[in-house]
Formats: sequence, C-alpha cells, structure tokens
Amino acid sequence: MVIVMKPTAPQEMIEKIVKKMTSLGCQVHQSQGANYCLLGLVGDTSKINPSQIEANKYVDKLLRVQQPYKLANRLFHPEDTIIDIDGLKIGGGHVAIMAGPCSVESEEQLMTIAHAVKESGAQFLRGGAFKPRTSPYSFQGMGEEGLKLLKKAKEATGMPIVTEVMCQDTFDVVEEYADILQIGARNMQNFPLLKRAGKSQKPILLKRGLSATIEELLMSAEYIMAEGNLNVILCERGIRTFETYTRNTLDISAVPVIKELSHLPIIIDPSHATGKWAMVEPLSKASIAVGADGLIIEVHHQPECALSDGAQSLKPKKFAQLMEAIKKISEI
Amino acid sequence: MVIVMKPTAPQEMIEKIVKKMTSLGCQVHQSQGANYCLLGLVGDTSKINPSQIEANKYVDKLLRVQQPYKLANRLFHPEDTIIDIDGLKIGGGHVAIMAGPCSVESEEQLMTIAHAVKESGAQFLRGGAFKPRTSPYSFQGMGEEGLKLLKKAKEATGMPIVTEVMCQDTFDVVEEYADILQIGARNMQNFPLLKRAGKSQKPILLKRGLSATIEELLMSAEYIMAEGNLNVILCERGIRTFETYTRNTLDISAVPVIKELSHLPIIIDPSHATGKWAMVEPLSKASIAVGADGLIIEVHHQPECALSDGAQSLKPKKFAQLMEAIKKISEI
Amino acid sequence: MVIVMKPTAPQEMIEKIVKKMTSLGCQVHQSQGANYCLLGLVGDTSKINPSQIEANKYVDKLLRVQQPYKLANRLFHPEDTIIDIDGLKIGGGHVAIMAGPCSVESEEQLMTIAHAVKESGAQFLRGGAFKPRTSPYSFQGMGEEGLKLLKKAKEATGMPIVTEVMCQDTFDVVEEYADILQIGARNMQNFPLLKRAGKSQKPILLKRGLSATIEELLMSAEYIMAEGNLNVILCERGIRTFETYTRNTLDISAVPVIKELSHLPIIIDPSHATGKWAMVEPLSKASIAVGADGLIIEVHHQPECALSDGAQSLKPKKFAQLMEAIKKISEI
Amino acid sequence: MVIVMKPTAPQEMIEKIVKKMTSLGCQVHQSQGANYCLLGLVGDTSKINPSQIEANKYVDKLLRVQQPYKLANRLFHPEDTIIDIDGLKIGGGHVAIMAGPCSVESEEQLMTIAHAVKESGAQFLRGGAFKPRTSPYSFQGMGEEGLKLLKKAKEATGMPIVTEVMCQDTFDVVEEYADILQIGARNMQNFPLLKRAGKSQKPILLKRGLSATIEELLMSAEYIMAEGNLNVILCERGIRTFETYTRNTLDISAVPVIKELSHLPIIIDPSHATGKWAMVEPLSKASIAVGADGLIIEVHHQPECALSDGAQSLKPKKFAQLMEAIKKISEI
Repeated sequence: MVIVMKPTAPQEMIEKIVKKMTSLGCQVHQSQGANYCLLGLVGDTSKINPSQIEANKYVDKLLRVQQPYKLANRLFHPEDTIIDIDGLKIGGGHVAIMAGPCSVESEEQLMTIAHAVKESGAQFLRGGAFKPRTSPYSFQGMGEEGLKLLKKAKEATGMPIVTEVMCQDTFDVVEEYADILQIGARNMQNFPLLKRAGKSQKPILLKRGLSATIEELLMSAEYIMAEGNLNVILCERGIRTFETYTRNTLDISAVPVIKELSHLPIIIDPSHATGKWAMVEPLSKASIAVGADGLIIEVHHQPECALSDGAQSLKPKKFAQLMEAIKKISEI
Repeated sequence: MVIVMKPTAPQEMIEKIVKKMTSLGCQVHQSQGANYCLLGLVGDTSKINPSQIEANKYVDKLLRVQQPYKLANRLFHPEDTIIDIDGLKIGGGHVAIMAGPCSVESEEQLMTIAHAVKESGAQFLRGGAFKPRTSPYSFQGMGEEGLKLLKKAKEATGMPIVTEVMCQDTFDVVEEYADILQIGARNMQNFPLLKRAGKSQKPILLKRGLSATIEELLMSAEYIMAEGNLNVILCERGIRTFETYTRNTLDISAVPVIKELSHLPIIIDPSHATGKWAMVEPLSKASIAVGADGLIIEVHHQPECALSDGAQSLKPKKFAQLMEAIKKISEI
Repeated sequence: MVIVMKPTAPQEMIEKIVKKMTSLGCQVHQSQGANYCLLGLVGDTSKINPSQIEANKYVDKLLRVQQPYKLANRLFHPEDTIIDIDGLKIGGGHVAIMAGPCSVESEEQLMTIAHAVKESGAQFLRGGAFKPRTSPYSFQGMGEEGLKLLKKAKEATGMPIVTEVMCQDTFDVVEEYADILQIGARNMQNFPLLKRAGKSQKPILLKRGLSATIEELLMSAEYIMAEGNLNVILCERGIRTFETYTRNTLDISAVPVIKELSHLPIIIDPSHATGKWAMVEPLSKASIAVGADGLIIEVHHQPECALSDGAQSLKPKKFAQLMEAIKKISEI
Repeated sequence: MVIVMKPTAPQEMIEKIVKKMTSLGCQVHQSQGANYCLLGLVGDTSKINPSQIEANKYVDKLLRVQQPYKLANRLFHPEDTIIDIDGLKIGGGHVAIMAGPCSVESEEQLMTIAHAVKESGAQFLRGGAFKPRTSPYSFQGMGEEGLKLLKKAKEATGMPIVTEVMCQDTFDVVEEYADILQIGARNMQNFPLLKRAGKSQKPILLKRGLSATIEELLMSAEYIMAEGNLNVILCERGIRTFETYTRNTLDISAVPVIKELSHLPIIIDPSHATGKWAMVEPLSKASIAVGADGLIIEVHHQPECALSDGAQSLKPKKFAQLMEAIKKISEI
C-alpha cells in the first residue's frame, strides 16, 4: 500500500501517520519529493482500514498494491483448481459444456431438450426452477416442482444438474436436487447468500454481476471460499455498457485476466451475453479459442413458445452443429 | 408494442403472427413499407411474451410503447405519494434529511452523532447494523446489538430510524426496530427480498443499483408494491461509469426523470455517490436545487477512526453548515 | 510514481530498474515486502516512459502519483483563472450565461432568438454555423453565411458570440467572427485542432468528450495551453453511460472535482446533457447550486421547426423563467 | 418510424401531425389504444427530422425502424465487400494480418520489425508516423520522415503500408505514402476528416471510437462512402467501460453484429483492446474464431525501449507463435 500525502501536509502529520501505521504492524518507507511525500507500506497491512486514512484531509490518495483476495488468488495457489462432479471435470484445460432450457416448463419440454443436448455431447443439464425476473408479472419458475423434473431428467440422461438458487429460504431444497448451485449475476453481491453457499458441500457456479469488476467477482468468490467451500466456478456472462444492440457486452478478456489472477475455473455464458440466438455460435467458438473452461448455453426446441429467454435460445439442431465446431477448436 | 418484420418475412408468417397476437387479446394494425412491415399492437398486451416474438427469425425487432410498471407509474396515479412517519413527511415537496454514521459502532459513537445531527436539523437518523461489505474480511456490522443502540438513540432524540435490511433471515428483527427499511444498491434486484419487503407495514427506502436503469429501479419498486406495500422511497446514489475520480457518478437527472415517470418520492445519497466528504456539500445543494425530496448523508465525529466509509463522512460541524445552505435553497 | 515488482522478480532485475530510473534523474526508494517489492520514485519523473516499464514482464504494475497536467493544474496556479470578454467575466465566481439556437438557420430566426435571450439576461450568444452531425444526410450548418449572421446579431445586441470550430481548414474564418471558439465533444482529442486553438488569441470553450475522464479533459486543455493560449473554459455536457432515458448522463460532480484539480472555469451544458427540454430547467438550477461558472443553453422560438436539436431547445418564455430562478440561486 | 403520442394528446394535435407527416411524403397508419396512440410511418421517411417531432410536448417518444445508413447497409448490398490491395484481399472470408510497431522510431527499428513480421506471415506493415497522444509532452511521431522509412520498408519487404492520418493538413502527404489510411478511434467522428477520406482513392481503415455504438461506427463509414470512397475497413479496438484491469474492453460481439448489419470487412486490434501484451495471443485466437476478417497487432523487438505502447507490443518470437495458432484456427 502507498499513501500519497498532499503537498500541504505538515511534517508532524506525516509522522503521526507513520507512527500509526507502524503500530498496526507494518513497515513504512518514506520518499520525499518536491510536491508529494510517498509512504510505502509493506509487511502485514491487513489491519489497515483504507477509508480511515483517506478521511485525513492531508492525504491525497491511497494506492493499493496487493489484491484483496487470498483464497482465490493464484499467487498463493499456483495450480489450477479442477472440480470433479461424478467424474466430469471442470477447470485445468477440461472443456465443460452445460446446456438446457432457460426455465423448466414441463416434463415433456425438459425431457425433449435434455435428451437432445446429451446426444450432441453436452455433459451437464442446465434449467431454472426458481427464476429471477425483472418484472413481478413475468413467469417466476415452477419452484420445487421444477427441481423434481430436473431430478427425473438426470435419472434419464445421467447428466448432473446446474440450477439457480435465489435465496436463503429455498437454499436447502435447491441444494438437495442440484449438482452445481448457480448464483445469478444480480445476486453476485448478495453476501448472506454467498455465506450460505460457502457452507454447502456442492460446487457453486458464480456469475459475474452486470457491472462488477473482475476484482469484485473474485472478492465474491472469496466470500464463499472463506466459509469453507473451495469449489467455485466463475462465469462471465456479459457486462452492461453503452452499446445497446446486444443485451450485454461479452467481456471475453475476462478469461485470460482471471486465468492470470486466480486458479478458479472460468466459463462463459454466450446466451445472456448477447440475448440473441444468432450470436451464440460465433461467441461460443471465440470463448473456446480464448481458453475458457466451458460454456453454459440455453437450448429450447420451441423458442417461440419458451416461457423465458426464447430470443436467445438455440434450437437443438443448431446446438448440435455448434458442438461439432467446438470440438475442433478445443483440439487445437 | 410494435413488431418490425424483416424485409425477407413471407406474407404467410406475418399473417400467422397477426393471428396469434389477436388471439392473445389485442388489436393489430399493419403498415407495409418498401422494406419493412410494421405491426402496431394496441389494447391489452399484457399476455404477450416479447422474447417469444423475438425468437422468430423473421422478426427484426420489437419496440415497446408502454412502461412495464403500473403501480409505480404516474400515468395511473398522477398525485405525488407522500409518506408520513410520526408526522414527518417524505415526498410532495417536503425535504427530508436523514443523517448519521455509516455503521453503528458503539453507544457513545451513535449518541454523539445522533444528538449532533438532530441539533443541526436532521429529521431521521441513519445507521447500519447489518453491513454489506465487498470483502469478507471487513467489519460486518454489530447486528442486533446495533439495532438496540439505534432504538436507544431514537428514544433519546425522537428521530425515526433508517437502517438497512440485508436478507430474509434477519428481516423480522430489523423490521421490529426500524422506522424505514433500507434495501441497498446491491440488493435492488434481490427479488425474494423485495417480495418480503412488500409484505411489511414499514416504508421501504429502495436504493438504485450500481448499473440499474431508471426503469429497472421502478420495476423493483413495482415488486414491493405488487405485494401490498405502497410506501416506497426511491434513492439515487450514483451509478457506475468509466470515470474513476469519484467512487460513482451521481445521476442527478434521475430526479426530474423519476418525477415525470412516477409518483414516488426520490431522495439522493451524496455520500456514496462520490465517496469523498469534500464533494458532499456541493452535491447536496445541487440535489435540493434539482428538486429531490430529501437527502441521506453520512456523518461521523471521528472519520479517521470510523469502522466504515470514513472517507465520505462529514464532520458534525460541516454538516451543520450544510444544513444552513440547504434551508436557503429549499426556500426558493 | 511507484513501480510494483512481481513476487517472481529477481533481485538483479530490480537493481537494473533502479539504476535506469536513477540515470533518468529521479530518486528511488525501495520497500521490500513478503510478496512485493515497491519502488517509490520522486524528483523529476518527466523523462520516464511508463509504457516501457510496464513492458517488463517482472513489473506487476505502475502507480502514478502526480497529475500529468501542469499548466491546467491548481497545484501550480492556486488562483482561479478569470477570463474577460468585453468586460464580461467567466470564472472565479462570476456566473456566465450563454444562450441561443443550436444552429443558425436564417437572419429572422437568429435575430428573434438573440433579442429574446438578451432581454432575459443572457450575456453571450451561442449559435452553430459549422455543425458536426452524426449523419452525412443531416443539415451541416450554414457555414460562413451563418458566421455573418452571428456578427449582425452581435452588432444588434452587443452580445459576444460563441460558435463551434470544427477543423483546421475553417479555423481562420471562424476565428475572425467568434469571440469564444467552441471545440465540441467529438473533437476533444482532435490534437491538431487543439494545437491550432493554442495559437489563437481567442478564448476556447472546450467540451468534455462523451467518454473522456476528467483527467483527459484537463490533458486536452493542457494541449491548448502548452501552445500559449491560457484562456480555456471547460464544459461538462454529459457523458455516455448505460442509462438511455436521457441522451447522456450529466456528471455534475465534475464541477467540484475540476474546481479542486484546476483553476480553469467550468460551465455546464444542460441541453446536450439530457436531450430533453423539460429537463433543462431543473438541471440548470442544480448546475448553479453546485458551483458552476456558467451555463450554455439552447433556445429556439419554434423548436418544432428547428433544423437541429429541437427536442432539447427551450422556448424563450421558459428561458426567461429559468433566468429568474438562476438569479435567486446564484445569490445564495 | 413510429410516433407514440402521450395519453393527454388532443385528437386535433394527432391530426395535425398526421397531416404534416403525409405532406413530407410518407404514409401514416394510426393505432388507437386505451392510453397511447401509435402512428406508424412507412414509405420515404428521409425528409422527417426526428428532433422536431420530439420537440412537440404531446409526443411521448419516437421509435426508429430503419437503420440510418444506406451505403454501408447489408440490406441494400447483400454481398461481402472485398478490398484488394496489390493482390492481397480483405473481407469475404480472407484473413488479413497487419503487424508492426506502434510508432516508427528509426530505420533500424522499422526494418528489424518489418522483416520479422513478414517472415512470420504478416501481409501488411503497420507503423505510425503521426501519433495522437493524450499528453502534449509525449513523443508525437517522426512525421514525414517516418513515412519515408515506411516506404523503404515496403520496398524491402513488399508489404503494403497501413498508417494513421490525423488531420486535413497532413492528409495529402500521408495519402502519398500509405496503401491503407487509418483513421484513429479519437477521430471516428471528426467529420471533416471523414469527408476528406471519402475523396481519397485509398482504402480507409476506420477504428471504432472509445464510446461509439456500432451504429455510429457505421454512420461514420457512411460519411466516407457518401463522398465516393467505398473501400472502408472497420476495426474494433476495445470500448471504454467501468472495468479498469484492461485498458479497454474488447467488444468481440461487434464482429457478428457488423457481419449481420453491413457488408464491410471488420478486423480486430487486440493490442489496444487490452493494453497488455500477454492478452494479445488469447484475444487474437478468439478474434479469428469469431469470424473477424483480420487483425492489426503491435510488434516491437525491444518493447522496454519503445517510444510508445511498449506495454502492449509482442516480441517477434511471440508473434511468430501466434501466427502458427491463427493459421490452425482459420482453417476450421
């Protein structure tokens, strides 16, 4: 950490800060320039509260040096985390494909799609039973009934289930049915939910918030890991920008950045990133080429009747073609 | 709603869509241009699922005409909503000032600040007992102990309490102590929490999410209102943009926009909007001048020792000066 | 400047960098932590090229301490710059009001509006003769003919003229007629144009780019000042964000931020900031309350016939009312 | 175009607007709902000035149906534009690789890099002689001297030259030496420059502005094309968002979006998109996989001595490896 003092800071105030920082357990080196005085802090800076320092009117700014996350940090855990679910691996170069409908709508719908994506090579079945919707008047999901159908689909296809958990109250029931618990973009900083997820034995698929920085995403992973659950899969799903042609803007650079900063697996959701089915194929190819550990894709056999996200769902035939292309790219 | 068909759309497909839309209960008017065919939909469009229409490959795009919120819409409720708490009014031209520390830290700290802000003319006491923090290693608030101190401060000063509720599990206890329940920016689309708030008898202070559009903010208010709680106070607290000098960017235009679209009161939080105490005074003045229904301001007598948000807290003396300026502007 | 070395950096590489930095004329202080080594650089760092340092694979990052602008920096010029045009002052607490049509369209149009705004108390007449338009098929301005009409309007009303200069080729002619030369948002980083403006004797009104940081705005002012023209007026006119209800998002915090960082006057353009005439009044009031040195406002007597920006133009009667309100707020 | 009237609009005003629109040459269809009246406009809407309509206080909003660009529009030109430069093709499935230093610094520097990138398979040599720099105190390029060196490098390697043109004053000289004229991101809406480029016989490489929408990029291409130069190559180079870890955010979706909307070639600049050399390889692979028509990459043999952009330049060896990977992906 580096404290930059204002040109007007009296020597006495600089000394007072040096003393306080030293008392908190770190070493301070002072560099005096013509206009600015820099205080370089090394050692254990964990007891320092940056906002208290910035409250001082003689402090110009505070520059952070270390990442604030530890358990998610590649610096302290150089090897890739690989998550194993019924023998299927996520992370460390394995490409995991999760596919299925946005929402579970009926047994027939789910079974049709589940068999189709399985046949094309998907390894995990996605499907929402509890649905976060912008409008209170939209379809809110089938709830536990939907979870039961997902269980049936798992029994029929052997595919582990990925489904969203929206709150503490329904956590236990979702945890019972799901193999991977998804925490949605809008809940990325729902801290009580993250803490509860940290106490679960199941892997967590944590989606990046619409306007979350990569560091904030890793801090949310840290919340889960700090409670004891180290099996966190990160998911880039598009961020909010000024561009309106696509629903969101896929931040594909997040993949190499996260590979550098963290050991956790990172997958991409091309369906939510654009909101348009025609964009899913090119973005999926790009995601594999950039080095993502997998994809989560919305597939529906009748998008024009889907209760949610029809516009961004691939038909099974398109999905099958996409799987062929992905196979070729991931071989390179 | 207007459906724009692609130039390649066959007549038969256009007729099919017209038929389906008519069967859902609305009237359709067709305008045929050289390249595009427009379908204008009027009447009851509530049964239409836009995403299903956009899934059709012959549909170019869908243009929405009506706002998706009803209860929060000024169109159906032209009069300003005025919320009355122990005789203090929020909305309709009354300027409500809420002030206090970011976090409740101790009885001494809270009492000192509460008396100071009361004396300067604040009407409501703010203070956090349950704190959402980006890092799991930061101070997480005093919890129920903090709520009890807030109650004491209310007894001592007569000021109603504004405090944040973070989750379903702690809702009941916060509801018991608070006069206004705050839902934070990061929870603006925590839909189960919004539904629970909708069942409360207490007014809800709903903060705009970091990257939420004004329409999304109003849809979140709609979630609360649809459950029966019509006492929602909106709060603009800065949005996330590319500018990094301030912590967030105060979207001051949100005030006149919301006044046009909705009848709900809208206040401003200048402390979080900038993250810098020196900016709080000018932004507070601007907020009153633009027509906001109030302010929520962080005040601390020792910012350099504050357990959270010291950098953006005003000292009591500065707050007193600010209250003088606010009084003059609000008289105009 | 602070160089943060990666944990893997060999001692030899650190020494090499220290040596190079010292040879460039600055002093280096080293702080060795458990994981990171910090190099604090003070003295004359102007010969250092940051990108060269970041190209080193052992460098984690580079933290800047000093602002890169000098002439525009309040640190080296604590007093407010006050610009005097025919006895009218801009900066240092004087509130300057510039008003007029978006485009000059005809003699009758310009004279009608000029007399109206003069009567309401505007001090400067704005009006575009060369117009930057997003579409090549839109009205591009009257060119020199428009400049001549502006001159006539000045003769008739006594108001100095503010008009936009778009390129090097037409600089001389615009310079001849205008009292203040406006450089538009889309040209904020048109560096050859900035250099030419720096050679002019006329004050420059420099508008902030749609996605320019405040630092970049000040660096563009520095370009002009470095060529010798110190009379730069900055203008905040809304930045581009994800919010689409308003055309842009007025970053009102830019005013106190710039007052802190620079001595140059800063005015606000509420017309472009929102794109809606109904928002101009509240935002103008807020701008004065926040401490802006003036406003530039679009006024048209027949907005529904305006060749450009009709949607954001105030009618003269509304403008007159606004001027009354502004007078009251600026008195406080 | 669709005009949405406010619920309060009197019938007489609706009729007045219908009449005016009809007089401008288009057909109007009226759909009357309970709260809103929709006016669907088809036929020739080119004479309508949207801002004039929005200036009417009874108009709620105006929804656009057609894209405002014509020459750049795939609707009117379904075949891909393929640009041929000395037998090298850009567009229509051909992958063009442009590589070289950010700035031309010396004959030795340029020749070393030119030979290296040629050997690895690059087809075009990039290099800046006139440099747009954020700071007036940074290296501004070698000017015409640099252009002469580029000519020498072309003679030695046979590679056509891509170089930036910054203004009208230096257009002629750059045009004389360059094979492709680059217009930089900060000049994307420098309309006089675009018009001049439209009169050139040389292909134009038009970079997307930092906060330009895809539609604005296509409108800028339209400016060039409307003057007669149809050889425009678009370039996505990262947009400005809230994420600060990378210099910009590569909007990789822009490639499939532009392929859908326009027939013009679209290439990607991964160097500026991230600002970090280590990200160039993964993003280049993703760019080819997503379907881009080419890449423009910064290469320097001594990045730690580069006069500009050292931090984002690849060393020749890394570039050679990247070319191998690109070849494999583009074969799929």
